[in-house]
Amino acid sequence: MGLIVQKFGGTSVGSVERILNAAERVIEEKQRGNDVVVVVSAMGKTTDELVGLAKQISAQPNKREMDMLLTTGEQITISLLSMALNEKGHEAVSFTGWQAGISTEHIHGNARILDVKKERIQEQLKNGNIVIVAGFQGVTEAGEITTLGRGGSDTTAVALAAALHADKCDIYTDVTGVFTTDPRYVKEARKLFSVSYDEMLELANLGAGVLHPRAVEFAKNYHVPLEVRSSIEREAGTIIEEEVSMEQNLVVRGVAFEDEITRMTVFGLPNSLTSLATIFSTLAKHRINVDIIIQSTTSADTTNLSFSIKSEDFHEALQVLANNKTVLNYERIESEAGLAKVSIVGSGMISNPGVAAEMFEVLAASGIQIKMVSTSEIKVSAVVEEQQMLKATEALHQAFELSGTKVQL
Amino acid sequence: MGLIVQKFGGTSVGSVERILNAAERVIEEKQRGNDVVVVVSAMGKTTDELVGLAKQISAQPNKREMDMLLTTGEQITISLLSMALNEKGHEAVSFTGWQAGISTEHIHGNARILDVKKERIQEQLKNGNIVIVAGFQGVTEAGEITTLGRGGSDTTAVALAAALHADKCDIYTDVTGVFTTDPRYVKEARKLFSVSYDEMLELANLGAGVLHPRAVEFAKNYHVPLEVRSSIEREAGTIIEEEVSMEQNLVVRGVAFEDEITRMTVFGLPNSLTSLATIFSTLAKHRINVDIIIQSTTSADTTNLSFSIKSEDFHEALQVLANNKTVLNYERIESEAGLAKVSIVGSGMISNPGVAAEMFEVLAASGIQIKMVSTSEIKVSAVVEEQQMLKATEALHQAFELSGTKVQL
Repeated sequence: MGLIVQKFGGTSVGSVERILNAAERVIEEKQRGNDVVVVVSAMGKTTDELVGLAKQISAQPNKREMDMLLTTGEQITISLLSMALNEKGHEAVSFTGWQAGISTEHIHGNARILDVKKERIQEQLKNGNIVIVAGFQGVTEAGEITTLGRGGSDTTAVALAAALHADKCDIYTDVTGVFTTDPRYVKEARKLFSVSYDEMLELANLGAGVLHPRAVEFAKNYHVPLEVRSSIEREAGTIIEEEVSMEQNLVVRGVAFEDEITRMTVFGLPNSLTSLATIFSTLAKHRINVDIIIQSTTSADTTNLSFSIKSEDFHEALQVLANNKTVLNYERIESEAGLAKVSIVGSGMISNPGVAAEMFEVLAASGIQIKMVSTSEIKVSAVVEEQQMLKATEALHQAFELSGTKVQL
Repeated sequence: MGLIVQKFGGTSVGSVERILNAAERVIEEKQRGNDVVVVVSAMGKTTDELVGLAKQISAQPNKREMDMLLTTGEQITISLLSMALNEKGHEAVSFTGWQAGISTEHIHGNARILDVKKERIQEQLKNGNIVIVAGFQGVTEAGEITTLGRGGSDTTAVALAAALHADKCDIYTDVTGVFTTDPRYVKEARKLFSVSYDEMLELANLGAGVLHPRAVEFAKNYHVPLEVRSSIEREAGTIIEEEVSMEQNLVVRGVAFEDEITRMTVFGLPNSLTSLATIFSTLAKHRINVDIIIQSTTSADTTNLSFSIKSEDFHEALQVLANNKTVLNYERIESEAGLAKVSIVGSGMISNPGVAAEMFEVLAASGIQIKMVSTSEIKVSAVVEEQQMLKATEALHQAFELSGTKVQL
């Protein structure tokens, strides 16, 4: 008898019918003799509807109050799922983030989990109850309600799995697993049997969308085995774990892509040792995630700095930089929106120095201009025009033989 | 500079437009130099929609989970009102029941407030913030979310006013005050300038609907002056306070009515000293409110007992009595649904013994049969057929000259 954490995303609990279906999956696990902790997101479009209400009142609603508003979404789902389990003859108890002991830092809209006070959940498991926890939300030491930002429910699930020493954390979603690339856009995409945390981290970071990188990182750090699987289809998903024994023959495991990227370039920064640290710590203080960074020194005195951000953060990033112009001491800022990032990922790359070169050749052969490049040990990313994103993805997917028979299903 | 508690009911915050309107009323009070604490209900039909979701899953949803579900309604309103105040340039902070320190007993669906831990609200008032509190909800010592049942938001407002020693508690609603009878049904109804707590208590208890009796009782016990007023019209409402100096010449101050009443009769109870106590403590344990009670001893050994309850409680009441048949030792139960209660209220009755008789004469002259009667020092109630409720109300309203010029407006 073990302990399983299950997470159901917004579409998997998007209607009463879906909630009843999720309840069936919970009961199946319980009937295998396991203790079950379930983490759920808000129902389907609930969050969007709540955001819509807020936007009718304020163009830029107070972040604390947005957290107050949005956390009701998951609270609705936990109560309904608990009722569904009751109705099907199973004892269940639902907990909001604060009740479940999800303790976070005091930042609204994008808080990190600091601790999980697990006693209350453990007590309910001991009583034989299925425990249902609202994802995406937590509470500060001062009793303020916070949200975890993007991928928050995944992070809640993995954090609980880690804290409770769960045997496994199952991520139920609307796809059947992790694919070599997004099957909604590239029909040759194939499901992977398993991937390593690092590969998944790159795939997730690069917009594969199935699982948030924060959650993968958390899982990696605490050695929580994950499985991404369908909440509807009863088939094996994709296991995410430390050691991937199969498919090692493949250098590239997947092609990820992400649109709505903006490149900002700051010209004429003083060529000092602290310049870069200052600019990025200023942005970080405002929770703006910078992805690719390119520095080019143009003279002995000044340097130019390009970086990519999500287009939705552009307005705030520009404002933050403008507000700190005196301290940062730059000349001017230029920007280019309408960009996308395409990346190849695979742990086999470490020993294959020619992979990046091959990627650039493939893109060049397809007439795709590369705007920025970034590499790590297991991935290579290229920023391209948004209109060319899928063309680039398909070319790379084919060139690295991902749709071929070498992929294990 | 004082402290005002304002309460806005469901219709007064039923849309974004209404919330913006409520924000204006809050700001007016703040600009008079007062500290303001605002208590709000769920937006319009939100609670009904949430109940509808639950009913799709379970015919009798778990009460704990219903509380979890329903409390999201007020949480949505507090965040939106807070955003509206921010947008209009005022600092505001919203609190759920548990954040506002509304401590209740551990009963789901109908908990009573045990204590208000007011430090967190006081701290925010000290910082110059408008404080917005979710009505209807609280938290137990064990951290369980509870709801206060009917009239819960009124009760929250009065409890906060009492705990914070507020100068006044304004109940903003969709009517302009307390009337001699329900103006939606009786066009001769007139607004009262002021009523005493006791009169309001009887009026509220009798279904006047404007303000819940629990809230009035709370206000009376803690000497909180109340005003019932319109959230739309800018006119004086009805003051509810200890001493009513005007209108003392009127014996009857108002006619209240309430439909959906069921009379239950328990036949053949043992004629023992503990019989009545046992039956009503059994019902009370299940939070079933019994209103009028009539006992008639038919033999030396047994007694028959009639009592009226809300029709919605009938199913549960019957079940509770059936489950306890062995202990209660009665013969059989009969019931009559489709009844209503019509009552005349006024503190002047104490010194007018003929008022009850006059009421019975008026009803008899209108051809209305009285099924049950109950009297207190300041009211007389008669249970009649539901179809005759409004006819009885109109006859009494006219007979006691409530639409006449004697009423102060």
